[in-house]
Amino acid sequence: MAITDILIREKTNQAVKILQETGIDCWITFTRETEICGDPNLVFLAPGHLTWHSAFIISRNGRKKAIVGLYDKKGLEDLAAYDQVEGYVTGIKEPLQTYLQELQPEKIAINYSKTSEICDGLTHGMYLTLYEMLKEINLENHLISAEEIVSALRERKSPVEIQAIKKAIEITEEIFEQVQKFIAPGKTEKQMAQFMLDQVKKRGLSTAWGQSTCPAVFTGPDTAQAHYSPTDRQAERGHILNMDFGVRVEGYCSDLQRTFYLLQENENHPPEKVLKGFQTITRAVEEARQAMKPGIKGMEIDSIARKIVTEAGYQEFPHALGHQVGRFAHDGTALLGPAWEKYADKPYRLLEPGMVFTIEPRLTVENRGVITIEEMVLVTETGAEFLSHPQRELLLIT
Amino acid sequence: MAITDILIREKTNQAVKILQETGIDCWITFTRETEICGDPNLVFLAPGHLTWHSAFIISRNGRKKAIVGLYDKKGLEDLAAYDQVEGYVTGIKEPLQTYLQELQPEKIAINYSKTSEICDGLTHGMYLTLYEMLKEINLENHLISAEEIVSALRERKSPVEIQAIKKAIEITEEIFEQVQKFIAPGKTEKQMAQFMLDQVKKRGLSTAWGQSTCPAVFTGPDTAQAHYSPTDRQAERGHILNMDFGVRVEGYCSDLQRTFYLLQENENHPPEKVLKGFQTITRAVEEARQAMKPGIKGMEIDSIARKIVTEAGYQEFPHALGHQVGRFAHDGTALLGPAWEKYADKPYRLLEPGMVFTIEPRLTVENRGVITIEEMVLVTETGAEFLSHPQRELLLIT
Repeated sequence: MAITDILIREKTNQAVKILQETGIDCWITFTRETEICGDPNLVFLAPGHLTWHSAFIISRNGRKKAIVGLYDKKGLEDLAAYDQVEGYVTGIKEPLQTYLQELQPEKIAINYSKTSEICDGLTHGMYLTLYEMLKEINLENHLISAEEIVSALRERKSPVEIQAIKKAIEITEEIFEQVQKFIAPGKTEKQMAQFMLDQVKKRGLSTAWGQSTCPAVFTGPDTAQAHYSPTDRQAERGHILNMDFGVRVEGYCSDLQRTFYLLQENENHPPEKVLKGFQTITRAVEEARQAMKPGIKGMEIDSIARKIVTEAGYQEFPHALGHQVGRFAHDGTALLGPAWEKYADKPYRLLEPGMVFTIEPRLTVENRGVITIEEMVLVTETGAEFLSHPQRELLLIT
Repeated sequence: MAITDILIREKTNQAVKILQETGIDCWITFTRETEICGDPNLVFLAPGHLTWHSAFIISRNGRKKAIVGLYDKKGLEDLAAYDQVEGYVTGIKEPLQTYLQELQPEKIAINYSKTSEICDGLTHGMYLTLYEMLKEINLENHLISAEEIVSALRERKSPVEIQAIKKAIEITEEIFEQVQKFIAPGKTEKQMAQFMLDQVKKRGLSTAWGQSTCPAVFTGPDTAQAHYSPTDRQAERGHILNMDFGVRVEGYCSDLQRTFYLLQENENHPPEKVLKGFQTITRAVEEARQAMKPGIKGMEIDSIARKIVTEAGYQEFPHALGHQVGRFAHDGTALLGPAWEKYADKPYRLLEPGMVFTIEPRLTVENRGVITIEEMVLVTETGAEFLSHPQRELLLIT
């Protein structure tokens, strides 16, 4: 069976369990023309894209129903994940209203969230459409946010999901090893990035996010800040070089950063200041990981690493310590982040077993460049374990 | 300059003109984590993906401002398409409120629409976020749908856009010619689809929509309906075979269908019933095209072709006669469609110069298969012209 099909069965069953846990009667994913602005959770519900208004209705009582345009019906029926797939020609209103009147749910969870983009796949126009259809059958006041359901669904990774993420990490580490041999003084950021993209292509894979910044390669001091495309700037001896990179394997991503140092001709080891920066970062990663466990808030973990960096005399990094990873490099709701407006409620969420996070503190060493390591960890029943092989030493280029 | 950069300048300038035409003061595209559920119009506004809450504010007075997370700032500044790019660290609220208070717009258009998915890129959670920010500065009642602006922006194709679409059509037609030589009795739908995908790959391109149904290949009677993946069903003599296929070139799509007939060993030409069906379809395409001109409603065009098919004794096709094509195979708001619920107001929209439509009627010939042709046409100042080379004869496989 295709991994897509396994996932859809796994996730639709998981959704029923989460509904039972939360006491919410049903969860509706309502979408249309999904190539244009589809719901990010559609991958857990359907094997491909859908054209017309489509509703996937999963109930606490275990019933799973899909209502889709006629041409999208057969592909869904083949899945055997739904009790019933209904196809319509002229419009979804009548079949959707009929089914919901039969179901009479107290609470109808739909995919919107101010906090979490991963739970915010319902567009405002589609919200209005659904609201009006429900108003006609007096159910419009039963709508609530599905954030709790969708977060759990994406965050509690199944063995199949963990396996794919591990594979993606393995390949990413392999490519980091290969590029280490390629890096040399005079090579440009663009050349190094291209070398890595060629490795991705050779394996028939795609990058974990857009190729213009995956890999991101930064060499030396005064580089552009993160999220910027590789430039024609050349690697130089005495400079730090860092890379942010990931691949996608069977729909799941890796997201890792590694830091290199180009030794001067008269150097046997990196200068003190570079070493101190590196050790600060590895300590921040390790202490953050050790503190992670189910039930703790993400902001507490962020604060541990942030404090290590600032107390060592460096400027605070202007981003969260870590995010979840899954089908996107940035996935899930709970975040190892500070309580800043842009992170909404995410840093307040509690860690749960099965979550996969990055840990990625950053600091700048004057005149040398940026040190940043990004590892990936899995939250277990009792703590958190590395999924990546953590960088313990600066990667030296001689 | 990259085509992306040209497009962004072209489209942001076009947006100012449309705002002046409509009398709307400003247009805001408000989005975050755009790899997850980005606004489909972001390609006209930014060269890549964005991580945090981002606002692109284009005003009737010609001012163009972007407010983005700090790490996304430099990539946008390089574009030189905005008067100002502001980067923030903790949250977008303060810079966004400050700018809008200065602007004091009467009407603020945002990307939501019940009718048109292409104008519905704002998620409901992001709508609520924006609404609350505006409420604090007493502007929440100034929000309106940007459907009029976004539709015009996507539908009025510039020369650069038409050029890319023409290129995509040319390559699609080339691949149809190649597959015609490959088709033979005994070849499966999957084999034929793979042949075409190999041609796409060889050219370093991607398909116009998801590969599982692009190409779609249907052979013989009682096939699955449109939008279904190719199967192991083999092409047989005496059957009709049809394909739905397109490629994406420089971000722009083609979407064409062609119909083939596999001659029996004792046949020199297709049977009467097949010919009659084919001629009905070509007549429907041609009469629809001839009726197209600026100012006419899409539903009037749909009705011409639909009537030709039903009056010839065939069942009505369960879909619109034609949709617009652009960055997606299904693009734009105005539709050559019937007044069915699922099409909302789209069929009532008036045709305008610069729109690119498909024309794709369909009918079934009993015991033989489905005849369907899909052409692409450009609406001009006075009528509509073919962009594709219209299929005038059944493509015969001997």
